Amino acid sequence: MSSQPPHPALLIPGPIEFDDQVLQSMSHFSESHVGAPFVKTFGETLTMLRKLFQTQDPASQPFVISGSGTLGWDQVAANLAEPGDDVLVLHTGYFADSFADCFETYGVKATQLKAPIGERPQLDEVEKALKEKKYKLITVTHVDTSTGVLSEIEALSKLVHKVSPDTLVVVDGVCSVGCEEIQFDNWGIDCVITASQKAIGCPAGLSIVMASGRAIKSFQSRKVPPTSYFGSWKNWMPIMQNYEAGKPSYFATPSPQLVHALHTTLTQITSVPLADRFAAHRKASQKVKKAITDLGLKQLASKPENQANGMTAIYLPKGMTPPDVLPKLMQRGVVFAGGLHKQIATQYIRFGHMGVSVTDPNRDDIDRAITALKEGITEAQAAMDMSSR
Amino acid sequence: MSSQPPHPALLIPGPIEFDDQVLQSMSHFSESHVGAPFVKTFGETLTMLRKLFQTQDPASQPFVISGSGTLGWDQVAANLAEPGDDVLVLHTGYFADSFADCFETYGVKATQLKAPIGERPQLDEVEKALKEKKYKLITVTHVDTSTGVLSEIEALSKLVHKVSPDTLVVVDGVCSVGCEEIQFDNWGIDCVITASQKAIGCPAGLSIVMASGRAIKSFQSRKVPPTSYFGSWKNWMPIMQNYEAGKPSYFATPSPQLVHALHTTLTQITSVPLADRFAAHRKASQKVKKAITDLGLKQLASKPENQANGMTAIYLPKGMTPPDVLPKLMQRGVVFAGGLHKQIATQYIRFGHMGVSVTDPNRDDIDRAITALKEGITEAQAAMDMSSR
Repeated sequence: MSSQPPHPALLIPGPIEFDDQVLQSMSHFSESHVGAPFVKTFGETLTMLRKLFQTQDPASQPFVISGSGTLGWDQVAANLAEPGDDVLVLHTGYFADSFADCFETYGVKATQLKAPIGERPQLDEVEKALKEKKYKLITVTHVDTSTGVLSEIEALSKLVHKVSPDTLVVVDGVCSVGCEEIQFDNWGIDCVITASQKAIGCPAGLSIVMASGRAIKSFQSRKVPPTSYFGSWKNWMPIMQNYEAGKPSYFATPSPQLVHALHTTLTQITSVPLADRFAAHRKASQKVKKAITDLGLKQLASKPENQANGMTAIYLPKGMTPPDVLPKLMQRGVVFAGGLHKQIATQYIRFGHMGVSVTDPNRDDIDRAITALKEGITEAQAAMDMSSR
Repeated sequence: MSSQPPHPALLIPGPIEFDDQVLQSMSHFSESHVGAPFVKTFGETLTMLRKLFQTQDPASQPFVISGSGTLGWDQVAANLAEPGDDVLVLHTGYFADSFADCFETYGVKATQLKAPIGERPQLDEVEKALKEKKYKLITVTHVDTSTGVLSEIEALSKLVHKVSPDTLVVVDGVCSVGCEEIQFDNWGIDCVITASQKAIGCPAGLSIVMASGRAIKSFQSRKVPPTSYFGSWKNWMPIMQNYEAGKPSYFATPSPQLVHALHTTLTQITSVPLADRFAAHRKASQKVKKAITDLGLKQLASKPENQANGMTAIYLPKGMTPPDVLPKLMQRGVVFAGGLHKQIATQYIRFGHMGVSVTDPNRDDIDRAITALKEGITEAQAAMDMSSR
């Protein structure tokens, strides 16, 4: 039985519901950030991240820094690009616009390749763009939290390596790491940025990054120093390497409690085959998507191959807005999120199905949410019909 | 009785020992970062910070962002200074060098005014420096965690306002907010940056900043946009204002658990007169300092008026190094820190006396630490005498 007090099931696309043990780790008694016990915990955490990202290359470098997923963008813009560089940003929703903003802040020229809402840029369009200009790096949002659109990482990365081999492949995996397969080495990815509070299943407050040996080399051969201080790999890389080698080291104080919670969830995640974890997310996602189709509702992500496995963005029936439905879900103990894509924010809602809500057989969050959605939509429809009579 | 498992008392100058209730708040069940309950918690937290900083001016702006104290430097360098600006950095230890580094990262020219180890720049030297060049802002480390040197904020701020009225007064209060008096409005301070894990008594992971109306105006009249993305007040200010007004808002996901813990400790801190809190820290500090003098040991901070009230940096007897003593303290259930000031790191240790270890009458951390220090030094001295025979 859960040791958490009764509360509505948080089924937004992050933060997600957390496991009891993970939440208990957040209350860990105070430890020195440079004492042997915590150095061990932090070091093991970094090593477990290598497993989660499926990288065996010792040149790969994990980073865990207090912050949020957004800080990962600063790390990419300030360490992997230099002022004046061109970068190509693939757009599948809200988060590409913001990532492009971040690049511009650091004097990096971001060219966006946009797809219509619910779709993703096609490989031939990407190939054309890569042939037109020399890009320092390309970014792709693995799952855009605003649309639930899933990008195709493996084929994209292979294309980039073929067409523009010097271009670094950067994946925004904030809403994908832990629920969508990522084969960091095999797919030739140079950098994945993510955050703790989504499918990794640890409370918010950590920016998590994996960089390839090639990315680190590119960083080390910069012409100008990193353009961020708090996000500088020059400052953080020796610290991460020392922690993983079991040596105390200091640049800025990490959060022992959050790192303990991350250690706990990564221990859980890496104790079962990753393939099983991804399969569980695919299965739950298919159940959700079938229920939505059965309800006569459409997803933002237009085609099955475009659809994320950890969340679903659902168009509401014509005329219905999130405030018509979300409170009815809340009454039924389920929290969904409203729309986030600026152009259509009032037309859709978002349902997150990641982490323990999917993998813990003792939880019925997903079934309860499907029932609540069915009842909530029906009730909202009835209220609309009533008022339009 | 504490609900924490038995563990050595963490008496380094941060992170400190935390109250049970604060640690329990870290395990709060998952909530939406834009849902009404958390918006209320975050808004109240921001409002309580105004109390802690003793600011009644509604134009003052608090910021709470996932990160560490270091991120506060980025916020100052990227929002209050512009590339090419001159800033004056008063140096009382390690942290001024790093703050200056941070300015240089953002293209800001930092001039350091250094004092000998254990001292602080004198007001007449500061006056002379301010008259030589036009500085956009001046920074002072209220308590330098590497030396335990306390700076004089009120007199310094008055001097700056008199001699160079356009220069913003910026205080690094990472090791002072919560244990040293700061009258934000009365003393005419423009910005204080701090972190959660020291005298504020909340686990590490939050960068906490208070900016004056004058600082915000200066920020708003910048010629170029902020030079950080994650640390940009352009991105965060509307979010903080919305949270405090009870309205949901999104730029990057905050950490609900850490904010709950901050809310709990601020509720405790603001429930007693601040004057009592500062007096308790002064009293404990005097007890520690007297014990050190009685032991025949010297402090890095050379004069009583230079000495911090939340920590003490202690020179070891000649020939003794931190590894000779710290394990002996650990055996007695007390964790102190080694030296941090590069030039003399092996010659001294640091003792933090902040927060519940000082204010909770049920804790005997300070007395136990004094006894352990006495025994540990004596034992280490005996071992040295033995080996030199």
